[in-house]
Amino acid sequence: MSSPSSPVSSPAPSRVVGTVAMRWHEHSLELLDQRLLPAEEHWITLEGASGVAQSIRDMVVRGAPAIGISAAYGVALAARHAGGGDWKAEIKQAIRELAASRPTAVNLFWALQRMERVFHGCHSLAEACKRLAAEAVAIHEEDLAANLAMADHALAAMQPERPLSVLTHCNTGALATGGYGTALGVIRRLHEEKLLNRVYADETRPWLQGSRLTAWELAQEGIPVTLNADGAAASILALKEVLWVVVGADRITANGDVANKIGTYSLAVLARHHRVGFMVVAPSSTVDMTLASGKDIPIEEREGTEIREFRGIPLAPGGVDVFNPVFDVTPANLIDVIVTEKGVVHNPDIAGMGKLFG
Amino acid sequence: MSSPSSPVSSPAPSRVVGTVAMRWHEHSLELLDQRLLPAEEHWITLEGASGVAQSIRDMVVRGAPAIGISAAYGVALAARHAGGGDWKAEIKQAIRELAASRPTAVNLFWALQRMERVFHGCHSLAEACKRLAAEAVAIHEEDLAANLAMADHALAAMQPERPLSVLTHCNTGALATGGYGTALGVIRRLHEEKLLNRVYADETRPWLQGSRLTAWELAQEGIPVTLNADGAAASILALKEVLWVVVGADRITANGDVANKIGTYSLAVLARHHRVGFMVVAPSSTVDMTLASGKDIPIEEREGTEIREFRGIPLAPGGVDVFNPVFDVTPANLIDVIVTEKGVVHNPDIAGMGKLFG
Repeated sequence: MSSPSSPVSSPAPSRVVGTVAMRWHEHSLELLDQRLLPAEEHWITLEGASGVAQSIRDMVVRGAPAIGISAAYGVALAARHAGGGDWKAEIKQAIRELAASRPTAVNLFWALQRMERVFHGCHSLAEACKRLAAEAVAIHEEDLAANLAMADHALAAMQPERPLSVLTHCNTGALATGGYGTALGVIRRLHEEKLLNRVYADETRPWLQGSRLTAWELAQEGIPVTLNADGAAASILALKEVLWVVVGADRITANGDVANKIGTYSLAVLARHHRVGFMVVAPSSTVDMTLASGKDIPIEEREGTEIREFRGIPLAPGGVDVFNPVFDVTPANLIDVIVTEKGVVHNPDIAGMGKLFG
Repeated sequence: MSSPSSPVSSPAPSRVVGTVAMRWHEHSLELLDQRLLPAEEHWITLEGASGVAQSIRDMVVRGAPAIGISAAYGVALAARHAGGGDWKAEIKQAIRELAASRPTAVNLFWALQRMERVFHGCHSLAEACKRLAAEAVAIHEEDLAANLAMADHALAAMQPERPLSVLTHCNTGALATGGYGTALGVIRRLHEEKLLNRVYADETRPWLQGSRLTAWELAQEGIPVTLNADGAAASILALKEVLWVVVGADRITANGDVANKIGTYSLAVLARHHRVGFMVVAPSSTVDMTLASGKDIPIEEREGTEIREFRGIPLAPGGVDVFNPVFDVTPANLIDVIVTEKGVVHNPDIAGMGKLFG
């Protein structure tokens, strides 16, 4: 096994607040087990791509950007731990395995394609070790930089004149990204600029990312957060002075349709009904210009046990049928603005998307 | 203590399918502890009004009609177990205590007013014992009869030509009523008439009435049910062939606004967006013509622990702020039809409501 000439470390957490989702070491990747939060902060150490693929599948790590970054590190690990035989075949197999871990977030495939391009240019395992690790770290660093840039663009688009309240869904913070966050990064920035009154956070069933991760991230930093059942969002938009619903994305198609955590589409309909702004914040790695519309996005359905049970405790009759899509598609016409690090698309459509991403 | 001349028993369960929520005996009321379903069928025996009030407050029994019926039985118990002193004061105190148990469902106050009217006509404790028990049983029997009549009216309003799918929220079945159910009674009737394709049941956070009660009731009877996270309802309306959203109510005001379980208002907005019918099914005891609009309905907020914890397991950071309204208000203009045992109101407004309930 070859080692790179110099250790490659994680990005400097200059603007990263709170806990990060992953730590890269020379020969291993540590992932914070997000299934156990907020009760327990347990880190899992992985030395191979299979373990990373399994961790993505099992949602040890989740969030479209964090999945992409983790997969990139997985490829780097595959090179570092390649055996004495056909190292190229081993890395190719690792990429295939990682690509099969989850279907909806395009950042996974985008990151693997970047890793694959670098891999194809390598002539030795030593070179692959060094260059693949460097590429994974670059993907990580670029994601963090993108989040910081998106917060700038979002505030420019919002033009808040005084502190405002927002509603968010799922977790799009440091835990879901390379650090800082997408939608939650915008919320962090509002708070930093003293322009945030309060965040309402949907608990986000079935996985409770809002309760377990978002409320935890925000509470750690003293950002004023109120947690609510997903079904209470409509009342909040009707009764509280919320100006924006701000969410992330798992895939954005060429016409501006957005796949995101189940429940997002509902919020978009509710936001339009209540004349509240609806903002999607995601790095350009989430944009998939090869798909014409949201109808083409594969929507992952997960096990019915996520609905029927909680940590082994039955919530429903054992054999009951469950529909458990974990993402939904919000059509572009319900979205006021898509924010990426490359800029923003107001009232997204095929023309506006093509101008920025074509 | 006086006893009535003859025992008064619960209504004959001729059309009641599945488990009932309560059983009336001569000197006690048994309530099925709905907090423990579906894991355990445990009955709680109550001999006084305080215990009934506590059971309503703690949601041993829930569902607007079932709350009203239980409270009526609570008044009957107060008479039966009145001490040798001022029996009138004891019954008045029982009524006050029961009235303070939960604020939103008007059926509670409606039932207590009926009991109070009977009480005021009684000249002895023996008479009160007999007549209050008979009135409580009458309230129970009338509720069951109302549910059966509502199912007739609802099917006439739907005019289904072939089997259809519906989406429902919370639990409005035998467990929430005197038997059969309101919205779930309509669904039962569709199934009996072979006009039901499938019911999608929102799990209904935070209390999971959909998972724990509705799925359980329907599964017991072999009615095809699919359970979903509340956030998936929008995808179901977009992707599945659902023709009606059918829900119950906790209070309906003079203009046709409806208070019902948190999440109902969201479904009404989504139903309108997807051109799906939105039907509210409730007995006329749910109609409160003394309130001009939904703005006047007191909306109960329950403990944040319902969101922050599940059976003592933390779901969120301990001290996080929670907004936990357990009902919301759906404005009349989002409702296609209100069904009661007295008839239906299409496109409800003050005129249509006044015509049927004025």
